Amino acid sequence: MVVEQPERTRALMPKLMAFMADHVYPSEALYAEQLARARWQVPAVMEDLKQKARAAGLWNLFLADDESGAGLTNLEYAPLAEVMGRSAIAPEVFNCSAPDVGNMEVLFHFGSPEQKRQWLTPLLDGRIRSAFCMTEPDVASSDATNVRTRIVRDGDHYVINGRKWWITNAGHPRCDILIVMGKTNPDAPRHQQQSQILVPRGTSGVKLVRTLPLFGFDDAPHGHGEFVFENVRVPASNLIAGEGRGFEIAQSRLGPGRIHHCMRLIGSAERALEAMVVRARSRVAFGKPLAEQGALRELIARSRIEIEQARLLVLKTAYLMDQVGSKAARAEIAMIKVAVPMMAQAVLDRAMQVHGAGGFTDDFGLSYAWAWARALRMADGPDAVHLEAVAKLELKKNG
Amino acid sequence: MVVEQPERTRALMPKLMAFMADHVYPSEALYAEQLARARWQVPAVMEDLKQKARAAGLWNLFLADDESGAGLTNLEYAPLAEVMGRSAIAPEVFNCSAPDVGNMEVLFHFGSPEQKRQWLTPLLDGRIRSAFCMTEPDVASSDATNVRTRIVRDGDHYVINGRKWWITNAGHPRCDILIVMGKTNPDAPRHQQQSQILVPRGTSGVKLVRTLPLFGFDDAPHGHGEFVFENVRVPASNLIAGEGRGFEIAQSRLGPGRIHHCMRLIGSAERALEAMVVRARSRVAFGKPLAEQGALRELIARSRIEIEQARLLVLKTAYLMDQVGSKAARAEIAMIKVAVPMMAQAVLDRAMQVHGAGGFTDDFGLSYAWAWARALRMADGPDAVHLEAVAKLELKKNG
Amino acid sequence: MVVEQPERTRALMPKLMAFMADHVYPSEALYAEQLARARWQVPAVMEDLKQKARAAGLWNLFLADDESGAGLTNLEYAPLAEVMGRSAIAPEVFNCSAPDVGNMEVLFHFGSPEQKRQWLTPLLDGRIRSAFCMTEPDVASSDATNVRTRIVRDGDHYVINGRKWWITNAGHPRCDILIVMGKTNPDAPRHQQQSQILVPRGTSGVKLVRTLPLFGFDDAPHGHGEFVFENVRVPASNLIAGEGRGFEIAQSRLGPGRIHHCMRLIGSAERALEAMVVRARSRVAFGKPLAEQGALRELIARSRIEIEQARLLVLKTAYLMDQVGSKAARAEIAMIKVAVPMMAQAVLDRAMQVHGAGGFTDDFGLSYAWAWARALRMADGPDAVHLEAVAKLELKKNG
Amino acid sequence: MVVEQPERTRALMPKLMAFMADHVYPSEALYAEQLARARWQVPAVMEDLKQKARAAGLWNLFLADDESGAGLTNLEYAPLAEVMGRSAIAPEVFNCSAPDVGNMEVLFHFGSPEQKRQWLTPLLDGRIRSAFCMTEPDVASSDATNVRTRIVRDGDHYVINGRKWWITNAGHPRCDILIVMGKTNPDAPRHQQQSQILVPRGTSGVKLVRTLPLFGFDDAPHGHGEFVFENVRVPASNLIAGEGRGFEIAQSRLGPGRIHHCMRLIGSAERALEAMVVRARSRVAFGKPLAEQGALRELIARSRIEIEQARLLVLKTAYLMDQVGSKAARAEIAMIKVAVPMMAQAVLDRAMQVHGAGGFTDDFGLSYAWAWARALRMADGPDAVHLEAVAKLELKKNG
Repeated sequence: MVVEQPERTRALMPKLMAFMADHVYPSEALYAEQLARARWQVPAVMEDLKQKARAAGLWNLFLADDESGAGLTNLEYAPLAEVMGRSAIAPEVFNCSAPDVGNMEVLFHFGSPEQKRQWLTPLLDGRIRSAFCMTEPDVASSDATNVRTRIVRDGDHYVINGRKWWITNAGHPRCDILIVMGKTNPDAPRHQQQSQILVPRGTSGVKLVRTLPLFGFDDAPHGHGEFVFENVRVPASNLIAGEGRGFEIAQSRLGPGRIHHCMRLIGSAERALEAMVVRARSRVAFGKPLAEQGALRELIARSRIEIEQARLLVLKTAYLMDQVGSKAARAEIAMIKVAVPMMAQAVLDRAMQVHGAGGFTDDFGLSYAWAWARALRMADGPDAVHLEAVAKLELKKNG
Repeated sequence: MVVEQPERTRALMPKLMAFMADHVYPSEALYAEQLARARWQVPAVMEDLKQKARAAGLWNLFLADDESGAGLTNLEYAPLAEVMGRSAIAPEVFNCSAPDVGNMEVLFHFGSPEQKRQWLTPLLDGRIRSAFCMTEPDVASSDATNVRTRIVRDGDHYVINGRKWWITNAGHPRCDILIVMGKTNPDAPRHQQQSQILVPRGTSGVKLVRTLPLFGFDDAPHGHGEFVFENVRVPASNLIAGEGRGFEIAQSRLGPGRIHHCMRLIGSAERALEAMVVRARSRVAFGKPLAEQGALRELIARSRIEIEQARLLVLKTAYLMDQVGSKAARAEIAMIKVAVPMMAQAVLDRAMQVHGAGGFTDDFGLSYAWAWARALRMADGPDAVHLEAVAKLELKKNG
Repeated sequence: MVVEQPERTRALMPKLMAFMADHVYPSEALYAEQLARARWQVPAVMEDLKQKARAAGLWNLFLADDESGAGLTNLEYAPLAEVMGRSAIAPEVFNCSAPDVGNMEVLFHFGSPEQKRQWLTPLLDGRIRSAFCMTEPDVASSDATNVRTRIVRDGDHYVINGRKWWITNAGHPRCDILIVMGKTNPDAPRHQQQSQILVPRGTSGVKLVRTLPLFGFDDAPHGHGEFVFENVRVPASNLIAGEGRGFEIAQSRLGPGRIHHCMRLIGSAERALEAMVVRARSRVAFGKPLAEQGALRELIARSRIEIEQARLLVLKTAYLMDQVGSKAARAEIAMIKVAVPMMAQAVLDRAMQVHGAGGFTDDFGLSYAWAWARALRMADGPDAVHLEAVAKLELKKNG
Repeated sequence: MVVEQPERTRALMPKLMAFMADHVYPSEALYAEQLARARWQVPAVMEDLKQKARAAGLWNLFLADDESGAGLTNLEYAPLAEVMGRSAIAPEVFNCSAPDVGNMEVLFHFGSPEQKRQWLTPLLDGRIRSAFCMTEPDVASSDATNVRTRIVRDGDHYVINGRKWWITNAGHPRCDILIVMGKTNPDAPRHQQQSQILVPRGTSGVKLVRTLPLFGFDDAPHGHGEFVFENVRVPASNLIAGEGRGFEIAQSRLGPGRIHHCMRLIGSAERALEAMVVRARSRVAFGKPLAEQGALRELIARSRIEIEQARLLVLKTAYLMDQVGSKAARAEIAMIKVAVPMMAQAVLDRAMQVHGAGGFTDDFGLSYAWAWARALRMADGPDAVHLEAVAKLELKKNG
């Protein structure tokens, strides 16, 4: 075990940290202001930041391909993603935000040349955004075989009917393409019934029923939406990879998706701990600085201990994914998916409390970060599902 | 110890529960709809419900005065307040919502006849609403002696300067009167420096700087605001009770205010548990109803155990307040202020998780109820302050 | 709800508290010393204390019969049992210790006149002690239908074969009588297969295989034993109540048995909190008394809050048992069986920590009290079984 | 970060694991039996195992010296120590048990040639055992400057007076040498007042007042003792390193001592989890194997997650100690000292519960392992002290 960051990480890290300090943190307030004026428009500062990030060579770091991306392994990317996770606006700045990252990876690995040309290129350029339509309101979507949306072949087209919700980017003005999961072959074996298909946002029959708040946050300008697909007709060539490969494609994105969330949550928790420390040093109550109150000091120490442990488990998982692949690392992926959001939630909760009533407002970004950590105990599978996966593997050992 | 509800509670309870079932729960969706159309207007359904409640004799139940209110003790009121706490819109329906309840009590006990005529009567009638301006952004307001707002005598008037935040009702279109806490005599003994004064909302110099979200919720139509008071001039007769009595008045409202919040949180948690049970029975995942999954069953059981214990402590506290007063019951008030929000938060968190992604939206009311429970670990004093109060008393025992 | 103690409790309480202060607490060290000299003999001080307690009218308070006992209800007895629970040696002093209390109640309610004469009378006199042989090492005994011990009729006798463990009092020199649970009718309906039978300790074939330590504690002089019954032959008249009534008899003792344990644990936790406070006031570390360290103060406050809530739930349960019986109060009994040991364990853990390394020795009685609280998360049914019982009832509500 | 074990660890590991499987686990019961027959004698099986271990080249692996020990770094030793931690008897088998390890390291680094010859050589040979006398009953010994024992020069001798407790190995028949910490120069600067001195066990004036149980465990044959030193006179040459260096020597052993405990606790928790899994698969309750009960499955999963995180933090700490030394790694050492015992305690508690009443006996070794984990939340400094150390460092960051 070597704790030092890999060489390529160390090469990029100072640049990334400087960019965060010089450009990202100072722009957070402006971003919020611009957004307050035009709720579902992209704040101009975001476009500006994206150009600067690209110019600085901090672009598409997530993509493990040398040509289209930075060619980093998970282990190399992890500390960088953590730093991006420190600001709610940062991942998009570096074109590393969910669900676009997952969609780009799917197109990169499974897309046809034409699909790549049409959708992957503008996504890699940061010109458009995308959504992944998997979760459905009427079934427990943590079990992917439950999906009810139908994708039916009709001559040279497929016709899609179904209802999806919690579709991130649904409200974004440049969210031009949706990847929709549905069943093409309900009679096939359990994991070969599903397919994924590309649906341009403007296709007739694609209806955004409503946007869904997360706690009270609308998450503008991207937001989370509920879509109805009513007889949505797209060319057959929009199908990704082939009929019956939907489950396989979904699996391929889930491991990386989950660890990316966890990497960023480490950064979110780390920044919250720093904020807690700053506040504790500066705030006086009942005659002495909060920093001198023993109970709070213990919470600071516990937060540090929890963050350290969670980070190490994320790094180990990244390393295993690099070495043996997501499937062989599925126990570890499940473990971090449980451990990291819970840790982040706990640290953020303490940070909010130290910030008094202000902790619940938008003033410190803590309440939003908390809500997001909380959501990640559900998104990509609830805790219960991942705990069950870990338990099942454990009960098989030494059998 | 007798567990049965007091006689007067039992007389009112069936009426209240029927009213909730017939009128309040069925109106929640409509209230949200009307509010969505006009964010800072009072939804028509609320006025309608208030009239019905008053007609049904379910009005001002909080007020321990036989004539102006229902004349109930805390112990008698507690189970009724719990039922009101089951719906976010209910307390206002019955004219029992914070901070108006506290303001009415202050006016009832400390107001001059003229102050009562002008402000208490319309408040008791539910015609206007009110705010209590105590917390300040720049100081740890859990220590009331920190208050910086100045109230300075100038001939027949007082002139007020200061900044206040987390002022509930700030956005309400009928919030006509503010009770403002400030210092009249900074050189007096520590607890005689403060006074409270009535400031009509429209007085020149009263400026609403912004409304403050709670985990993204704007809490319309009442909201929470940040006010600046710039040379606000009101007649000297607006002072409540007399110079230097501000701390005393504040103390008098805090005990009842805290226990009312706790009573309602019990109801909030109880409804969440019921929702959890309903969901567990109806939702299927991985081939069996959630209700058959052992880990979830344990959470249901733990929630029941935690609610029962918290409710009993609230009832004991209510009883003590009735028998020996808020001051003698201050340990118990501090205890419930810590125990009940934490319990409610835990139960609501589990209820959200069982509801999947929907738990974080407005669909089930759970995320808002959670945010409110979370806020109450800070409002009226953070946990740390109440734990300290309990510890101090404990450490004095058997000395 | 009335918090005051019932009249008969208030009449006895000062006497009991004075007895504890004058006789019990001051004898704890002597009891330990005498025991250290003769591990499995009854320390002389115990017999002395018993005589004093009986003379003081503090004897058999548990028995709800006016003639043989004090005639107290559960609600009246609860606060007294709590006080007895403050000292590990106190329950026996007042002839109120488990499992004798349960055995006496069984004999009182189900015993024949001859059985009462022979065994109940000396037990009520405190002349002998008794054991209850139910748990078996080879099956999950929390499910009483699993019992494997056989009780077979043979002419005028019954012949018993089986293995039992965790038989409290097994090592006591005056433990003269065992009540053994086994199956007389394995083909009867599920809850009519079992019977209970009286087996004098000295009967041929009764073999104490070993005594079982509890976290290293031998619990002398009573101890916990593993028995083998090999062709143990007793007169048929030793059967209690009749064949097939074993399950019914067991059920009748479980409710009271569980609540008695909980009552005493409240006292155990309460004494630990007091010890924590005393220690915190007197011990200095890093230049200031522990009592001034914020984190510890919070633990003191949390302990107080947890004890208060647990006590109230025990009192409510006692009240319900008195009013509607153990069966109708089974949810509450299950709740306290989970909540109280967990609370006591937590409070005792904190108390130990405050006492430094001494907390783990016999010097303060804390480690033994902790071990006992821990054991009670298993004895009379593990937490999981009681949580399941609560969940099942909850899931049936509003069905 | 590389997860793989270092080369030298991989070379030794199969040998160590085979030795555990072939010799150690199968001897645990015999060891207990021999001990039961002669409580304070060394069980013959231990001497036999030690010879075998030495013959197998599994001896003194802890010592980072190539000649006297195995020359392993902390990172190399950690996984091996973890495996030793799986059995309560294993560390001594490999001559790697506390406090001898620490004493050997002190003598190795600070001892004179004569001190080494006389005491280090027989310790490295496993012929004798040793004790470290630091903790005192009357002061908070977590603050080493509190020590009250006096070591006074008198001609060619030192005279020692004081009281020490929790002296591990106090009862061991071959515990021939004590290292005693005391003050030689009470007027020197705070950290130069203390010295350490070698006191042969049989010196006149060394009095074992009592052995101290840990919960109810006597921890024979080594035990924990309370010593009084009354005018104990030893040659001046017995002083280690020089007057005033006691604090420095203590510091040098604390880091390694703490991480060794943590390494072993990981193994203890790992074995408990395995036992839990085995039990869950084999035990049936209410008609189905425990392994199919969801709540238990979650506990298995959570245990796995907690162990993984704790182990990684221990490994990182070991690595840092190797690279930058104990002082620079003091935050990490403090972190594992808090995190690992707490984790082990939680895992062991669950394992006990799954084992029913048997979990509290000696049958599965779980209750003893738990007690030991609990003790380690106090030994070498209570949690509070380590949390404070972490907090202090955190609050200094970004200052």
